[in-house]
Amino acid sequence: MKQDRKDDIKEQMVQAVEAVKRTNPMAGSITNTVTINFVANAQIAVGGSAAMVYLPDEAEFLARAGGAIYVNVGTLLPVHEKTLPRAAKALHEAGKPWVLDPVAIGIGSLRTELLRQFKTYKPSVIRGNPSEVLALAGLWGLEGGSKGSNARGVDSTDPVMAARDAAVALARWTGGAVAVSGETDLVTDGTSVVLSHGGSHFMNRITGSGCALGGVIAVYATVASPFIAALAGHAVFNLAGSRAGSRAEGPGSFQTLFLDELYNATCEDIADNPFELMEAEP
Amino acid sequence: MKQDRKDDIKEQMVQAVEAVKRTNPMAGSITNTVTINFVANAQIAVGGSAAMVYLPDEAEFLARAGGAIYVNVGTLLPVHEKTLPRAAKALHEAGKPWVLDPVAIGIGSLRTELLRQFKTYKPSVIRGNPSEVLALAGLWGLEGGSKGSNARGVDSTDPVMAARDAAVALARWTGGAVAVSGETDLVTDGTSVVLSHGGSHFMNRITGSGCALGGVIAVYATVASPFIAALAGHAVFNLAGSRAGSRAEGPGSFQTLFLDELYNATCEDIADNPFELMEAEP
Amino acid sequence: MKQDRKDDIKEQMVQAVEAVKRTNPMAGSITNTVTINFVANAQIAVGGSAAMVYLPDEAEFLARAGGAIYVNVGTLLPVHEKTLPRAAKALHEAGKPWVLDPVAIGIGSLRTELLRQFKTYKPSVIRGNPSEVLALAGLWGLEGGSKGSNARGVDSTDPVMAARDAAVALARWTGGAVAVSGETDLVTDGTSVVLSHGGSHFMNRITGSGCALGGVIAVYATVASPFIAALAGHAVFNLAGSRAGSRAEGPGSFQTLFLDELYNATCEDIADNPFELMEAEP
Repeated sequence: MKQDRKDDIKEQMVQAVEAVKRTNPMAGSITNTVTINFVANAQIAVGGSAAMVYLPDEAEFLARAGGAIYVNVGTLLPVHEKTLPRAAKALHEAGKPWVLDPVAIGIGSLRTELLRQFKTYKPSVIRGNPSEVLALAGLWGLEGGSKGSNARGVDSTDPVMAARDAAVALARWTGGAVAVSGETDLVTDGTSVVLSHGGSHFMNRITGSGCALGGVIAVYATVASPFIAALAGHAVFNLAGSRAGSRAEGPGSFQTLFLDELYNATCEDIADNPFELMEAEP
Repeated sequence: MKQDRKDDIKEQMVQAVEAVKRTNPMAGSITNTVTINFVANAQIAVGGSAAMVYLPDEAEFLARAGGAIYVNVGTLLPVHEKTLPRAAKALHEAGKPWVLDPVAIGIGSLRTELLRQFKTYKPSVIRGNPSEVLALAGLWGLEGGSKGSNARGVDSTDPVMAARDAAVALARWTGGAVAVSGETDLVTDGTSVVLSHGGSHFMNRITGSGCALGGVIAVYATVASPFIAALAGHAVFNLAGSRAGSRAEGPGSFQTLFLDELYNATCEDIADNPFELMEAEP
Repeated sequence: MKQDRKDDIKEQMVQAVEAVKRTNPMAGSITNTVTINFVANAQIAVGGSAAMVYLPDEAEFLARAGGAIYVNVGTLLPVHEKTLPRAAKALHEAGKPWVLDPVAIGIGSLRTELLRQFKTYKPSVIRGNPSEVLALAGLWGLEGGSKGSNARGVDSTDPVMAARDAAVALARWTGGAVAVSGETDLVTDGTSVVLSHGGSHFMNRITGSGCALGGVIAVYATVASPFIAALAGHAVFNLAGSRAGSRAEGPGSFQTLFLDELYNATCEDIADNPFELMEAEP
């Protein structure tokens, strides 16, 4: 039965990846200035279309017009105080999928306040490193969350499995999916827990592999459920990461090769990237 | 006679490209955060110098001190509400060339309001995809313009030739040049219409090839007429695009090769890139 | 004796580079939107960790929590009016090292006002091109400074040695180090003057090699004195620059190779990069 479920997941991933390549769906982003270019290029490489905004009414427009939105709080500007709640509200009201990257949770009062407000608007996918996922569950008062933040800037100080309960609790609250990035990645919809394998140590030696992953998950979320979108995103990143990593001579050539491999990965390649399926604790 | 005119255009392109390589002229930019790095690197690769600003007085300073300015409304911030009109006014009053990229026209109230105001300040070169050019002509109440915007975020839904009349009308209003980007690019000064060939499908598989082109046209506009600057910009982009495209394994390696080819293209190579010359309808 | 001093400097560089590779220290940045990605990737390539912010309280948090901060005034936004003085004050009060890049000094009133205020907060390392160093010494009323700014946007119009006295005067004022970038780079702590050799002409054919150098110096400043941090930064940049330059076919491939070489440079390679040691005039 577990094999049936795995085959079903793979089939849904193939369909999602194929639909994106065929229909070129747009996923808007409100994201940081450090990796905004890499996010857009990754979204385009997998077959999507990118549009980045900062102003409140433009974000609301994209929330209603686009298929999904990627929200990354990495480098907040004053304008985000209005833009992010209005975008999250518009997405929630329109029933549109959105991906939240709670980057560097714990730094600064606006970041904390915005992330707190997002609890109501239930992001379809939450993606972060273990420390960020633990801290978000803590901020939202959910089981398994940490009291404070162990995020050290944008880096994690906790292992992936330490955030498993927090990830499950978050997914149960939102009704969507939660992804925890690490050497092995964990994705859960609150019922199933999937471990996705692959990638490269170079993914931690460049800035923005997590951001680009969040942006690509938003692209897949325009055509698939949050859980399948998160799994497809991790599969293509782990596949492209290990292919690029095996040829790279350093982080510069890794980035170049990685975008090439994102573009060249076929639906079947992506669905065949190794993953394990488990059930979440009841 | 048409051959004479073509030879004359080629000769002027050679002179423009050569003058930029020799004098390293500065073209400032007020542009989006997504592709700002690629714009600067493209400007430098062809021999120019780049300077990017956000604040009103800095934009006015560059408008007066620099040879030309590139204005791209891609990712507007609140500060642009003051910066862009003041820069456009300063450029118009100083008789300095400037290039307008009306990215994503139709999204948001500030974008519409700024683009409306630019009618008075007559950008020397307008560069966009067909949907953007049609929408701008419509916004300015010119012949051939569309009522609404068919822009889908930053992508076009219209073919290049559909924007021919709008491009000619815009060029006649500004007294400058208008460029419409597509598989084949169209450049007009309101009298002649030139089709520029070359490029690569990878130019649509990365973010910012249009922005970088606008920035490079601004560099050429420091030493040539708007029409010749737009033609030289398209020629070097189509040449470098097809050279890079023939060697690239994906969008990552394409970007790397493209900057190399921009840098290595000679004056003669650029002038020899194929184009067709036609007359505009009276 | 001079050889002893050179050997001592090399030994300290080895220790700094090795400590960074081993401990992955975080250096925050408040920097421009053009090269922010390149700064982060360079910091990570040498073994550090990057975190970029814009908001005042986030900058103060990083100033207190991080090992050092890189401040680059390249593309000022309105928020920087509050963020930069508060960050500089917090750094000064906490005795934390910080690196100042006075990019494009002379353009705009906010830039001038901020750079003037920084005199009090004594940046540990000042890094700029000759025109910027001359203009900063002039703005601060120090010996050797120029009255106005010869900066042309982000480019220098003065040779490195012309800024020697200004650099020494600045270093004596701050009690830290000053670095002047050019074909040969000059680094001084107000007593010794070091010339660092290497690099590539391609470093002027891409945007951000100076910014990335400033960011990397901040990483080294988390584990070494300002003078050693500046020397180690210049050594690794000159080494990686000349290695990448010898293989690059243009500015695109240079960037890729440069990040690879930053990552692959060993402690000994970096310390062995050629430099000359002189005494400053009394």
